Amino acid sequence: MVRYSDLIQGLPSEVPFVGPETQERLRGSKFQVRAGANESVFGPSDKAIEAMRHSALNEAWMYGDPENYELKVMISKRLNVSPDNIIVGEGIDGLLGYLVRLCVSPGTKVVTSLGAYPTFNYHVKGFGGDLIMVPYLADFEDIEQLLFIAGKQEASLIYLANPDNPMGTFHAPKKIEKLISQLPQNSVLCLDEAYGDFLPDGCSPNIAVDNPQVIRLRTFSKAYGMAGARIGYGIGEVSFIKAFDKIRNHFGVSRMSQAGAMASLEDDVHLNMVKKSVENAKVRIKSIADKNGLLTVPSATNFVAVDCRKDGNYAKSVLQELERQGIFVRMPSVAPLNRCIRISVVCKTGLDKLETAMPIALQISK
Amino acid sequence: MVRYSDLIQGLPSEVPFVGPETQERLRGSKFQVRAGANESVFGPSDKAIEAMRHSALNEAWMYGDPENYELKVMISKRLNVSPDNIIVGEGIDGLLGYLVRLCVSPGTKVVTSLGAYPTFNYHVKGFGGDLIMVPYLADFEDIEQLLFIAGKQEASLIYLANPDNPMGTFHAPKKIEKLISQLPQNSVLCLDEAYGDFLPDGCSPNIAVDNPQVIRLRTFSKAYGMAGARIGYGIGEVSFIKAFDKIRNHFGVSRMSQAGAMASLEDDVHLNMVKKSVENAKVRIKSIADKNGLLTVPSATNFVAVDCRKDGNYAKSVLQELERQGIFVRMPSVAPLNRCIRISVVCKTGLDKLETAMPIALQISK
Repeated sequence: MVRYSDLIQGLPSEVPFVGPETQERLRGSKFQVRAGANESVFGPSDKAIEAMRHSALNEAWMYGDPENYELKVMISKRLNVSPDNIIVGEGIDGLLGYLVRLCVSPGTKVVTSLGAYPTFNYHVKGFGGDLIMVPYLADFEDIEQLLFIAGKQEASLIYLANPDNPMGTFHAPKKIEKLISQLPQNSVLCLDEAYGDFLPDGCSPNIAVDNPQVIRLRTFSKAYGMAGARIGYGIGEVSFIKAFDKIRNHFGVSRMSQAGAMASLEDDVHLNMVKKSVENAKVRIKSIADKNGLLTVPSATNFVAVDCRKDGNYAKSVLQELERQGIFVRMPSVAPLNRCIRISVVCKTGLDKLETAMPIALQISK
Repeated sequence: MVRYSDLIQGLPSEVPFVGPETQERLRGSKFQVRAGANESVFGPSDKAIEAMRHSALNEAWMYGDPENYELKVMISKRLNVSPDNIIVGEGIDGLLGYLVRLCVSPGTKVVTSLGAYPTFNYHVKGFGGDLIMVPYLADFEDIEQLLFIAGKQEASLIYLANPDNPMGTFHAPKKIEKLISQLPQNSVLCLDEAYGDFLPDGCSPNIAVDNPQVIRLRTFSKAYGMAGARIGYGIGEVSFIKAFDKIRNHFGVSRMSQAGAMASLEDDVHLNMVKKSVENAKVRIKSIADKNGLLTVPSATNFVAVDCRKDGNYAKSVLQELERQGIFVRMPSVAPLNRCIRISVVCKTGLDKLETAMPIALQISK
């Protein structure tokens, strides 16, 4: 028999996010609209696609550089920091796993928001951490309470997504900067900026890169449209970044993904097109919600939390009816966030289908 | 300050395998021959390349299926087992990390061979395991001693690569099967079959897939020529495989890599071509060694351990002289294995360069 460690024995086997592919297998047909995983329907830059195709043809036989050096250099130039301030990994999910492993052992206190990113919680539980959940305040992560509880509980790690997932809200840079200036002595802030590229101009906080109490996480999965490539990065103080070399899977990132990420950094025209298209699509989602008497939470991401104005069961019914009509969406897991369904930006055809499907879903759910 | 766990504080920051890209940066020029990482210079199947290119163009914006379902079905059909017997991950390196995390906590005894795969050791140390190293016996991993020590030390995990890396030797199926039948009650055998596709016909051991004491690890990085794609799989008993869902990064594998792996399983013509080409190239490497008065260790892999017939310092000098001439190779880390350099199969041009470079390297090292 396998003699698992005590910690492992106490863990459930789970998939924190069941993929749409699994749902499609269960329902026996494909979704027509994929609006549940906050992917970018606008795809990667043509330059990134070409780089990945070139790499698949010519380089797939070679391991990628385990140090991701060239990509780190490109990122660091863009951010005006050193390559030693950058860690590249298998998406933010992979980096969250490593970060938690560095900071959390059985009993370590970790503070996050109730209803925030489940994969972070999965990693914390996976290393035996003690999760403390702070309720949202009017659809915003409650910075003051996160800070207060972290101090009181002597938390090692504080998780904050800015912009937030699943609600789409964000905090003004000054609020994040103030939070950082007030961090308890032994707390590290994990600032998940997966959706940071969608922030309005001038709304990204200013954070000293030599502050060892903060790590910012970013990804090529959202605005850069490369979710399938599994590549993201962290920005932090040099010795903190170096600590990832204690534990990471150095060869975890695909060589094709490295090539795609580098090429995508050289195409701001595409990035700006995506941002504009996302803004337009969010206006359309809001108008669909309006027409159906639903509310929307203002979003600085590539999705919109649509408030169905009743409880979680009702929202779940709406979601299921949309899915029955071929539209894959997701929703927050806990009240009061779960009065909403979370609709990712999709292309015009997808939004047309949403417009048709929504009144039917609401009618049936009544 | 970051408050690392005690375990993390005691770990060094390291890169178990420094990549050739790093060496190239340090030496200021590219290698002409990449014969150090046991990659497959014959590349992936054209079908796999086409599948990856198609996926990069059409699917890169979507997360891959976190359950790798379709790939698991294909693998399971090939092996005549259930998809539930298969776990797919970010290469064998990634799966080794998960396996160790499942079975190893601080103080857990783990048995491996002295000079065997360093990345396994890296993971064991990373989870606080207590590594016990059994010396090789005449360039073979010493099965009897591994078994004896595992029993004596009540080891949770035993690592065995078959065929072996870095020496290239393999054990007859009967010996592996006997080892399995004699495993101590609470020991799990991690059978690393990264090079299993290169075994002579009929030399793969017969292992009951419902035996919870064995997990076999395989990869698309070697015979399938997709090292850059970072995708491998494990075969094991259902509940053991399910335990990986307690801890793995479900979205760790690239969607392009999933597509490539599936397509590569449908091209046995390519696989057989690779196996033949590898055999031919190994004959050539042996003949180059012969001509230079060196010995070779018979290999069931895509590399040859070339015995330089002196000590580790001498072999290291030969290696460095080869590298100075633009040929990237690696060598075992400990005596007596480190009397050898490990030369990966490369294409004809590469072997020609090796033939020219070797006598010079030996002359200078004398």
